[in-house]
Amino acid sequence: MNRPSYGSDDPIAAHATPLAESALAVIRSSGPGCIDLVANLFSRPKALREAPGNTIVHGWIQNSRGEKVDEVLLSVFRSPRSYTGEDAVDISCHGGIATARSVLQCLLDGGFRQALPGEFTFRAFMNGKLDLTRSESVVELIEAKTDESRRHALDRLSGALESEIKAIKEELVHALAATELFLDYSEDDGVSGIAEDGLALDSENSDTIPMAAAEAAGLMPDRPRIEQALRDLETLAASYRIEKLYRDGALVAIAGRPNAGKSSLFNRLIKEERSIVTDIPGTTRDYIEAWISLEGIPVRLVDTAGLRHAEDPIEQMGVERSRSILQTADLILFLVDGKGGFQDADITLLQEYQSEALWQNRRAPPILVVWNKVDVAPLAEHGLRNALPVFAVSAKTGIGIPELAHAMKAALEENTAPAGLQQRSTVAGESQGRAAVGIASERQKALVDRAVAALREALQLADSHAPLDLIAPELRDAVEALGEITGEVSTAEILETMFSRFCVGK
Amino acid sequence: MNRPSYGSDDPIAAHATPLAESALAVIRSSGPGCIDLVANLFSRPKALREAPGNTIVHGWIQNSRGEKVDEVLLSVFRSPRSYTGEDAVDISCHGGIATARSVLQCLLDGGFRQALPGEFTFRAFMNGKLDLTRSESVVELIEAKTDESRRHALDRLSGALESEIKAIKEELVHALAATELFLDYSEDDGVSGIAEDGLALDSENSDTIPMAAAEAAGLMPDRPRIEQALRDLETLAASYRIEKLYRDGALVAIAGRPNAGKSSLFNRLIKEERSIVTDIPGTTRDYIEAWISLEGIPVRLVDTAGLRHAEDPIEQMGVERSRSILQTADLILFLVDGKGGFQDADITLLQEYQSEALWQNRRAPPILVVWNKVDVAPLAEHGLRNALPVFAVSAKTGIGIPELAHAMKAALEENTAPAGLQQRSTVAGESQGRAAVGIASERQKALVDRAVAALREALQLADSHAPLDLIAPELRDAVEALGEITGEVSTAEILETMFSRFCVGK
Repeated sequence: MNRPSYGSDDPIAAHATPLAESALAVIRSSGPGCIDLVANLFSRPKALREAPGNTIVHGWIQNSRGEKVDEVLLSVFRSPRSYTGEDAVDISCHGGIATARSVLQCLLDGGFRQALPGEFTFRAFMNGKLDLTRSESVVELIEAKTDESRRHALDRLSGALESEIKAIKEELVHALAATELFLDYSEDDGVSGIAEDGLALDSENSDTIPMAAAEAAGLMPDRPRIEQALRDLETLAASYRIEKLYRDGALVAIAGRPNAGKSSLFNRLIKEERSIVTDIPGTTRDYIEAWISLEGIPVRLVDTAGLRHAEDPIEQMGVERSRSILQTADLILFLVDGKGGFQDADITLLQEYQSEALWQNRRAPPILVVWNKVDVAPLAEHGLRNALPVFAVSAKTGIGIPELAHAMKAALEENTAPAGLQQRSTVAGESQGRAAVGIASERQKALVDRAVAALREALQLADSHAPLDLIAPELRDAVEALGEITGEVSTAEILETMFSRFCVGK
Repeated sequence: MNRPSYGSDDPIAAHATPLAESALAVIRSSGPGCIDLVANLFSRPKALREAPGNTIVHGWIQNSRGEKVDEVLLSVFRSPRSYTGEDAVDISCHGGIATARSVLQCLLDGGFRQALPGEFTFRAFMNGKLDLTRSESVVELIEAKTDESRRHALDRLSGALESEIKAIKEELVHALAATELFLDYSEDDGVSGIAEDGLALDSENSDTIPMAAAEAAGLMPDRPRIEQALRDLETLAASYRIEKLYRDGALVAIAGRPNAGKSSLFNRLIKEERSIVTDIPGTTRDYIEAWISLEGIPVRLVDTAGLRHAEDPIEQMGVERSRSILQTADLILFLVDGKGGFQDADITLLQEYQSEALWQNRRAPPILVVWNKVDVAPLAEHGLRNALPVFAVSAKTGIGIPELAHAMKAALEENTAPAGLQQRSTVAGESQGRAAVGIASERQKALVDRAVAALREALQLADSHAPLDLIAPELRDAVEALGEITGEVSTAEILETMFSRFCVGK
């Protein structure tokens, strides 16, 4: 929050749409005085200055020499009813590189500063329009590659994650309040506290009820609440790998001996599963790799055959690139030519892929063995070691492709689960948990992990009958970590909740 | 105008911004009933239905199952105050591929049809919001690569070309009206016409004044008007090559012997002149070619050194690609290593480039000889044949680069002028002409050429004392061609102008 350059309220402006040929481009501006500054560059300054919020004004953007730069529509927003909460103007001009650049340049010449990355959303957060989880979801939504990724991000934008975190935090705040209240008593009564004698105060008034509860719960007030919060947070932490899979996608390599039909399978998968392409002219298109949406998971599909033959005149170079792709793959489709059946060479290559030597610093990715050309060569008996599943398909006719795609998705989801920091959590566990929403950023993950670690420490301290004034800081740390997730870090708030539960006069 | 698929008034929708990661995306919709159709997909249908034109409504787009798809701002336009002239809604949603696609899909599922290319502008034209020259300028503006290209397009969008064409056309309509009036008289008086006896009617009434004028002008009424119109149209036709240069750009190849410093000059020019790049991730970047704005001309700069060494392991392949680049170049920078001075090998290579054999089916492009490393090697005496200009530069320090850039621009502009259909016109002539505005599309060029040809034919017929009823159709054809340029083809108009000049009662 204290990043120096983001703190100001200068009027800012930036491209809001990609710089490329298109019908429209939008340049966004925001900040106090924003409307007046744009009016100075506008053919109808009075109309703009007098425009109510949420209205559209037509006219021309002019540069400082009074030359027309483009015919535009201005969307006028007046504080606080805008994305940032400030006065703001969205300028909708003709699309294309030169025009959008010229319009932005006019603004920069006319008193605006180029906005920093995310600065509009930062201001929205600062002005209370979005919490941090929702701010982060804005970025996710933009980067969403598949409809499924988009849905996950949208849940967070709608505040589902914010609600979940707040609900868990509230439980912990209750538990913490009870603990602090207890410590408070200890202080009030001088030396006669739990820290002194390991026992609760005497029952000379009704205020000792929390004490009794604390005692009952193994010297920890509200222990069940804390245990439930820990379980919920562990579920959230476990969700991260799945969310990351849907957000960042996975690399699937098609491998196998020459002529097994790798390129045919590549093309078939691109055809059957939805290809992810932009409509930007000049965007790289490649014939050996493509992004597809595998039932909602963004998948970078690489045809290692292309690496070997299509591009490199020197065979060895292709083999090396192919190897390095395999080494970073999240899933390998190992293709076998059904017509030839399993050959010794197939077995040898497959064993190489399964050997630990290949995967020095990482766990081996899952391998799906694919029997191709099943339309003319039914799946034969095979002598594969350790019973790898074999999927019979025909890249040519499409037989078996939906089943293969489904297995690919399952393998990718399963592969995300077991490794990682969480021991107890599984993908299945995640989807059964109280929250369908997951966390999606490294930042959120780190804070959830911090809260989880603090709660585990607190429970362990309680188990070893440590004094409450050692346990309370752990609880407070967990609450703070959760507060940082949504962006409302404040011990003032903890205090307020605590005091509001106190009786009057105390 | 009768292209079948464009004629309907179905509600249409389309992406208006590029499909790529960005803050915002805009989906445009238009057509009768458009607002109601969007309301069916909107979280606040009543607010949208009741929204006045030119206002903005906040809410969520929902799919047919009622699931939220994205949080959006709707810009509401009510007929006729919209781009198309119809009811229209612009949907501003979160940027990014998946989101923008999902929102458009909702519209397509909800009764909209995917708009054809240019269909919004087509509707704007049909509804009288833009003439054809301005419609075309919209496309140009979008495709403008440099600020200069943008300015040229903007002039046309402002209607400068439309005004120019209309002014010329008006002159011709006057001349045509006089001619038609004359023919009219001939008919009225039966056989006693100019077609009959080659002479004007007798002077029995004041209506014969046009006749006298026609006679004075070599049997052609308003001949000076026609001659002026022809000159103006020739100027416009000549403008096309320059406009095309600023619109489509030019290919400049950097050639010369190895180690002359080609890559250094390439990098220096990219650095000094403004590079034209989009901000789309994944857009191809190349180290051997780049688009730069050469004082406003979009230039595709190719370093043939890169062709030879950087990419192709097989030298011969590089040489061939290098050759084919040279053969399509609009300008060649021939680089000489100043340290070594002009070597025989330089002269040989240069002579090869100047030889006609290389440029079989085209005129040789201009060549600028560039003496590199002038910072350490002053330009020496050289024995170049036929006195090619030599520019002394240092790619390393930047000495002489502005002068070279200026010479490159001049050479490109000059190179556009001499060839082509126009004999008399030159670039200089163009800029001295009455119209600073130029034509920019093949369509406009073809129509201007048609008008020019018709007027030349008309004048030639008049010179050979051909009868007026042979001349009139040529004038009419020229007027029609100009009417087609702006899109108001109608002989009704010609008639109206004609009759409005007639005296009452005739």
